[in-house]
Amino acid sequence: MGEMGNIAAIRAAMEKEQYMLKCQYAINIVEAKCKIIDEQLGMKYGREIMRSISKRIKTPESIYAKLVRKNLDVNFKTACEKLNDLIGVRVVCLFLDDVYEIARMLKQQKDVRVIKEKDYIAVPKKNGYMSLHLIIEIPICFDEKCEKKKVEIQLRTAAMDCWSVLDYQLCYKKTMADASGVMEKLKKHSETIASMDREMLAIRNEIERI
Amino acid sequence: MGEMGNIAAIRAAMEKEQYMLKCQYAINIVEAKCKIIDEQLGMKYGREIMRSISKRIKTPESIYAKLVRKNLDVNFKTACEKLNDLIGVRVVCLFLDDVYEIARMLKQQKDVRVIKEKDYIAVPKKNGYMSLHLIIEIPICFDEKCEKKKVEIQLRTAAMDCWSVLDYQLCYKKTMADASGVMEKLKKHSETIASMDREMLAIRNEIERI
Amino acid sequence: MGEMGNIAAIRAAMEKEQYMLKCQYAINIVEAKCKIIDEQLGMKYGREIMRSISKRIKTPESIYAKLVRKNLDVNFKTACEKLNDLIGVRVVCLFLDDVYEIARMLKQQKDVRVIKEKDYIAVPKKNGYMSLHLIIEIPICFDEKCEKKKVEIQLRTAAMDCWSVLDYQLCYKKTMADASGVMEKLKKHSETIASMDREMLAIRNEIERI
Amino acid sequence: MGEMGNIAAIRAAMEKEQYMLKCQYAINIVEAKCKIIDEQLGMKYGREIMRSISKRIKTPESIYAKLVRKNLDVNFKTACEKLNDLIGVRVVCLFLDDVYEIARMLKQQKDVRVIKEKDYIAVPKKNGYMSLHLIIEIPICFDEKCEKKKVEIQLRTAAMDCWSVLDYQLCYKKTMADASGVMEKLKKHSETIASMDREMLAIRNEIERI
Repeated sequence: MGEMGNIAAIRAAMEKEQYMLKCQYAINIVEAKCKIIDEQLGMKYGREIMRSISKRIKTPESIYAKLVRKNLDVNFKTACEKLNDLIGVRVVCLFLDDVYEIARMLKQQKDVRVIKEKDYIAVPKKNGYMSLHLIIEIPICFDEKCEKKKVEIQLRTAAMDCWSVLDYQLCYKKTMADASGVMEKLKKHSETIASMDREMLAIRNEIERI
Repeated sequence: MGEMGNIAAIRAAMEKEQYMLKCQYAINIVEAKCKIIDEQLGMKYGREIMRSISKRIKTPESIYAKLVRKNLDVNFKTACEKLNDLIGVRVVCLFLDDVYEIARMLKQQKDVRVIKEKDYIAVPKKNGYMSLHLIIEIPICFDEKCEKKKVEIQLRTAAMDCWSVLDYQLCYKKTMADASGVMEKLKKHSETIASMDREMLAIRNEIERI
Repeated sequence: MGEMGNIAAIRAAMEKEQYMLKCQYAINIVEAKCKIIDEQLGMKYGREIMRSISKRIKTPESIYAKLVRKNLDVNFKTACEKLNDLIGVRVVCLFLDDVYEIARMLKQQKDVRVIKEKDYIAVPKKNGYMSLHLIIEIPICFDEKCEKKKVEIQLRTAAMDCWSVLDYQLCYKKTMADASGVMEKLKKHSETIASMDREMLAIRNEIERI
Repeated sequence: MGEMGNIAAIRAAMEKEQYMLKCQYAINIVEAKCKIIDEQLGMKYGREIMRSISKRIKTPESIYAKLVRKNLDVNFKTACEKLNDLIGVRVVCLFLDDVYEIARMLKQQKDVRVIKEKDYIAVPKKNGYMSLHLIIEIPICFDEKCEKKKVEIQLRTAAMDCWSVLDYQLCYKKTMADASGVMEKLKKHSETIASMDREMLAIRNEIERI
């Protein structure tokens, strides 16, 4: 079975057993939690906290590519077991410190089990990528039973979010030899981004002190 | 404190402690459950099940009116304790039997506690009103704790839904003496509606047998 | 080129030249017009007018089926020229007289050109189908030019809308010999629906007179 | 009539004659235009163009504040005549050059009349604010007549959008004497932002050349 057949098989599996609706159920819950946190922090600090909350269910094409890249069996069952980002929620904040406070507030919730946490802000990926990743598990209940659903939550600042667009654009050309010069610049640019975030934070702190 | 002041006080209380977002959270969950049921039954029977799912959070004006009507203390705390329909979800089905199957599927869910069930289809209200009402309680989790939220789910057919519009229109004029003639007709009309639903069902069953 | 190839070719054509976005543009305008009418009539009569406004862009599968059924060349260009319902908006009203008043208000608008009007309420289709169909043309502007877009607007009561679900369900079985008995019943049922609408209207008029 | 009375009077005027729905109508059209441009440029360049399109109808409170600040008569009629931003659409792009190409594509449209254009990117406001502002006028048709609606379109990069949040936060404290130090820093920060945008653009151009 070639690439096309594999993708079609994954798509077919996703159309069964209300998979999409169950993902949407989990997204609904995570989004509701984020909005409550947004309002709580917004009232605590008297300013805007989250710039946007976006979400996606990983496409068959993208699942296929990731299974191949990770050298895993190419089928939907493996994807459900091994991939942590079939359901993704991205929270873009304005300020660096909010990223950590939101993460803390998500992690302490009673129905949330934290599976993994990766702080790519403290230690960026080697291409310069920065974000805080939480893999959590939450229960969704339907029929007579509940099911655990894993959700990857990416928390980042708006500046980091800008950077990631360039990275995304580059990744389709990465194999080319002469990308190396650009990759270096992109890495450097991520440092500009980091210092911009620190500057934002410093100015905000000063405004708050007035 | 007059009516205006009471309503303003209720509104102020509703703006605190993420009340609206928590209601929205509960609505998200109930809606996700309904959509899964809709797809499950849709696949089981190979036809459309729900015509629409609508939801509302009771307004301060409407809370006030209901507290007064029920002779309860007029404040938001009492409303939260005594009123079961602060959060309302309405599911309009096409066929009468679906109403009961959906109710059964909602009631059996692990995180759903049924507080009350009123079958105004088997025994319509004396004005002719028909619907199946479920009051359920579901947990929503945020911060370190979970909270129980009551939700009233009204299940009815599209024909019953039409009827209710006339009733709603009449209710603003109910006090007038000569409404009595109309009320009689409306009651009668609800019987037409009921027989129409039976006819719908009979034709559908025949189509399915072909 | 078989059915699959034809459908794929139609789908490919629909993905070009912002076809979907231009349809959405036209839908946005028609929906905005309907909402204004809804509010205008709602204020005029002090009651609910439209129960729902729904819209759809015809799918490649459905375009293909209609071209075949109408014995037309099976390609997207022909579809754009000959089919009037590539863009569809359905307005479901509560009362029969509102259907006609809304139609009148749509037809008089300066940027609306009426291409066709079919009153399947006055003269139902022979299977019993009732609705008022308007095919209108409106301009949408982008780039340096404007383009005319045809939109089919179906206006009907909620009761007629219920009926159409049964009809839709039957239409997949229509070829079977023994459907004839059911078709007869469905036709009969549409008369029940029509009389139910008249009853609704009569009761409403009486309520208004109180 | 004090501030509260003035605001209430503006709100009352806004609830008449389908004002909100007509604003929404204009927003629908501008949003449809922006989405078509987004897809056109996205296909032309093979990358993401717009990060977000947001829109708002100016609130009574905000209309009141602006009329006072501009020393205008405080009533809704004056607001409609003199204020250009009662309806606002904000387009956030990823790259600086896209801002200008989008503006050019909007301005050339047949039903768009450009009333005013202010390039606060070429010449930032003295506090450092950067954005390209277009005030346009488009016709919306309903009833038998059309009406011209002014819409302010703000075009900016994501980086500029970050900056504006700090500015917004500061503006509520602007009167305080010691804000001056912060204002200086904010102005300086806007230069960081501008150079960050140039860096983004340079890296993107390099990626495209690979």
